[in-house]
Amino acid sequence: MAANYAGPLHSLLMKAGLEDGDDHMHVVEITLFVTLLCACIVIGHLLEETRWMNESVTALILGCFTGFIIYITSGGTNSHILQFNEELFFIYLLPPIIFNAGFQVKKKHFFQNFVAIMMFGVVGVFISTAIIATGCRYLFPRFHLKSLTMQDYLAIGTIFSATDSVCTLQVLNQDETPLLYSLVFGEGVVNDATTVVLFRAVQKFGFDQMNISTAWRILLDFLYLFSTSTILGVIIGLLSAYIIKTLYFGRHSTDREISLMALMAYLSYMLAELFYLSGILTVFFCGIVMSHYTWHNVTESSRVTSRHTFATMSFIAETFIFLYVGMDVLDVDKWKLAKRSAVWPISGILIFLTLVGRAAFAFPLSAILNHVRRTPATHINCRRQIIIWWAGLMRGAVSIALAFQQFTSFGDTRNPDYATMICSTVTVVVFTTVVFGLLSKPLIKCLLPEHLRILHGSNSDPSSPKELRPVDLEISLLSGQTGGSSLLRRSSLSMLLQDPTAAVHDLWRKFDDCYMRPIFGGRGFAQNCPGSPR
Amino acid sequence: MAANYAGPLHSLLMKAGLEDGDDHMHVVEITLFVTLLCACIVIGHLLEETRWMNESVTALILGCFTGFIIYITSGGTNSHILQFNEELFFIYLLPPIIFNAGFQVKKKHFFQNFVAIMMFGVVGVFISTAIIATGCRYLFPRFHLKSLTMQDYLAIGTIFSATDSVCTLQVLNQDETPLLYSLVFGEGVVNDATTVVLFRAVQKFGFDQMNISTAWRILLDFLYLFSTSTILGVIIGLLSAYIIKTLYFGRHSTDREISLMALMAYLSYMLAELFYLSGILTVFFCGIVMSHYTWHNVTESSRVTSRHTFATMSFIAETFIFLYVGMDVLDVDKWKLAKRSAVWPISGILIFLTLVGRAAFAFPLSAILNHVRRTPATHINCRRQIIIWWAGLMRGAVSIALAFQQFTSFGDTRNPDYATMICSTVTVVVFTTVVFGLLSKPLIKCLLPEHLRILHGSNSDPSSPKELRPVDLEISLLSGQTGGSSLLRRSSLSMLLQDPTAAVHDLWRKFDDCYMRPIFGGRGFAQNCPGSPR
Repeated sequence: MAANYAGPLHSLLMKAGLEDGDDHMHVVEITLFVTLLCACIVIGHLLEETRWMNESVTALILGCFTGFIIYITSGGTNSHILQFNEELFFIYLLPPIIFNAGFQVKKKHFFQNFVAIMMFGVVGVFISTAIIATGCRYLFPRFHLKSLTMQDYLAIGTIFSATDSVCTLQVLNQDETPLLYSLVFGEGVVNDATTVVLFRAVQKFGFDQMNISTAWRILLDFLYLFSTSTILGVIIGLLSAYIIKTLYFGRHSTDREISLMALMAYLSYMLAELFYLSGILTVFFCGIVMSHYTWHNVTESSRVTSRHTFATMSFIAETFIFLYVGMDVLDVDKWKLAKRSAVWPISGILIFLTLVGRAAFAFPLSAILNHVRRTPATHINCRRQIIIWWAGLMRGAVSIALAFQQFTSFGDTRNPDYATMICSTVTVVVFTTVVFGLLSKPLIKCLLPEHLRILHGSNSDPSSPKELRPVDLEISLLSGQTGGSSLLRRSSLSMLLQDPTAAVHDLWRKFDDCYMRPIFGGRGFAQNCPGSPR
Repeated sequence: MAANYAGPLHSLLMKAGLEDGDDHMHVVEITLFVTLLCACIVIGHLLEETRWMNESVTALILGCFTGFIIYITSGGTNSHILQFNEELFFIYLLPPIIFNAGFQVKKKHFFQNFVAIMMFGVVGVFISTAIIATGCRYLFPRFHLKSLTMQDYLAIGTIFSATDSVCTLQVLNQDETPLLYSLVFGEGVVNDATTVVLFRAVQKFGFDQMNISTAWRILLDFLYLFSTSTILGVIIGLLSAYIIKTLYFGRHSTDREISLMALMAYLSYMLAELFYLSGILTVFFCGIVMSHYTWHNVTESSRVTSRHTFATMSFIAETFIFLYVGMDVLDVDKWKLAKRSAVWPISGILIFLTLVGRAAFAFPLSAILNHVRRTPATHINCRRQIIIWWAGLMRGAVSIALAFQQFTSFGDTRNPDYATMICSTVTVVVFTTVVFGLLSKPLIKCLLPEHLRILHGSNSDPSSPKELRPVDLEISLLSGQTGGSSLLRRSSLSMLLQDPTAAVHDLWRKFDDCYMRPIFGGRGFAQNCPGSPR
């Protein structure tokens, strides 16, 4: 953990004679941070029923507020407990969030909308990156940022294509609007992976001019990383299922089961990073495979525990990140070094380009998808298109982590243009998260009035989908959906009859029943197989 | 995390052109370590039914083995992935273990044997420290260790009084031998706290000669730390119960509940460390209070999840520590610096003094306790005395962490005497854990033949107490014991009638029912109170 603190508490402790070096400062930092995390959870809970707030915004504002207090009390010399550190973010905080996303995703909806998700998450990022990079390339030099290279501009393009759909997902309800939820959620995960992979490709090639050949190389590299990462995640997921099924069958130890699941999930991420693949994709697919096979091989109490533990870890990591980003807003050193007059117009340009870049793919790709998939259930109407566009406008910790990697990669650089870019990134992240995030609930209420009414009703209901009990979980995995109206069931049935993906799904189900489940376990198998025992 | 690695993998990656600095080495280290943890869990499971092995010994041997392979492949220049780091141990690994101990302890047995536990855990440590320190003071100078001061000898006394009863607890069964289990378990926790507090007192005063006045100061300091730490833990535990009861009542969020419990438990540890108290004691009592009040205020799924999650975290931390210690055995730098000819005799002396020091209090204190408590249920017969003596012979990670703090406290010291002491400590820890640990099962089988037969029967039974299901947990907390024969129930009832602690227990129960539970929650309250609503 990057500890960098020399503020008021430090001097207070020094005066009180309680200070005995770096070791104890670490204790002070951790104590303060854990206290803030607890405060976030309590405040987030108290504000849950308001119309505007959500947990991410609470954490971000609390972080900013704490940073401001430290800034004031330290006489303007310091503002944070912990400085933002990409390694901490990518190695410890991101894996539990993405793994939980894969573990809790509704596989049926996800794979039904696979093509649409890949369009938004992959093609969309390419379009958005191109527009933002081009826009910056022509607009930034007017604000005296002259030291940026073509590679920097491409990196900026990917940095500001990384969406953070946590806020939107907190508002959308996966039972009322399954299509919208799975599109926004799926795009969020694929977008994370795509931007990181694309960013690394841009960093790796280090070219100065963009042309067809380099674009082709980036695309090939991207496809290679995407496929190998997915395969690695699936292999480790299957391995965990096989080990737990073979060795642990009949004589279970809850602690060992959960430990092995958590450790192997983390191992998949680290192995991907070890081989310079995309850990995000690997751990996401590992999560999907684990919830499909491994989860069914463990004891009942391990099932309940694993679901809730992974969700809790993801929740803590998310709160941690927003708090962390909030505290880093007033990073004094960076602001001192930056061209402060340029930060505001540059942030404005970036927000504008983000809006345009997202609109440039959200609406056209929706139209193409509507043209190809003609079933009413998958139709993305105008209101849904606006929500999809809006859902991806927030920028989050991934953007900040990538910006730090790009602009402080050679130690604490002294380039004022780079410092300006970091400050602008932080400004854009805070602005989009707070302003766009706060507007999300009213906007969705306006566009989907009947949806939010139902949502409000279910919020006060103790058995809301967020609060799945063991039995619900079992049912949800058996039926592939939680609750869901009969209308929805009928429409998904008719969709299955018309949609060509139904054939693929059917083939997969047969293969899964006959070959995969007998080896890797799962919820009852070998029912429709030719050679299965009757 | 202290990363210090320049071994074969490093050079391999350098050659393969895959190396891009420290960041990636970190990834390599973590991947290797997580792989080893997974291997430990699988191997530990496979060896579960053998007569000799247990999880700690497996992890230690696997760690040594890996260290040996790295040592061979690096041509004798390096042996570990991660160097032992006291901060990592005390800040991240110890808290979950101790908290889980408090959370899962059977409060009834623990408090019934409170006096005996405090005798063994506090008075015992003082006696053992005095004997070991005196023995070393007279024997070590004969092996040319001349630079050690009186403070060093006292520190050595406390370092080798820190027991590690994990191995024994893996063999003892808490339902068959509740008295023995609660004594060994309780002593283990109090011993951890006492040695750390005593060690800090010794470090703090920095005196050169031992006399009545300094002994008195140490004792007073110890009593102050003991009481304040306990009070802090109780306060934070009650606070968590109050917050969850007041704010979360009726509209629960599982993730928030578990997060808040885990974070507040950790906060109690860090606050204690912040104020230079004993984090171990604080977090242990916080765990007891949380399992008595907070645990009853959360939803059903949170109860199952929290139990298993805390146990899993503790399990992973324990495995991590033994693996970590095993890998540090061949720490090349330390061995090069140490007086190698002196390490073996010094280790032998330390093991001998440990045996004597423990015998010097285990048997006399048992006799005193037998004299005072004349009930048959609490009688510690000769065989039980031997098991209590044996259970505390293993030395573990606490000893190593304290030795590192004492002998490398001023950076990487170049004092060969200090390096010799570190090497001797590691040798003693490995020897006692492996040899004494492996002998534990046969010894207990020999001393308690009827006990182990029952234990073996329950091992193959899927509903063994280690595998508590939600319903069992509920019952165990309602009745204060899990399962348990009717014989045991009768004896504890008769004990309650005769024992003077029964009066205290009765008073506490009334106070708890009438004043504590209405405020902080718990399993049904206000039944026997004067003003309670009928």
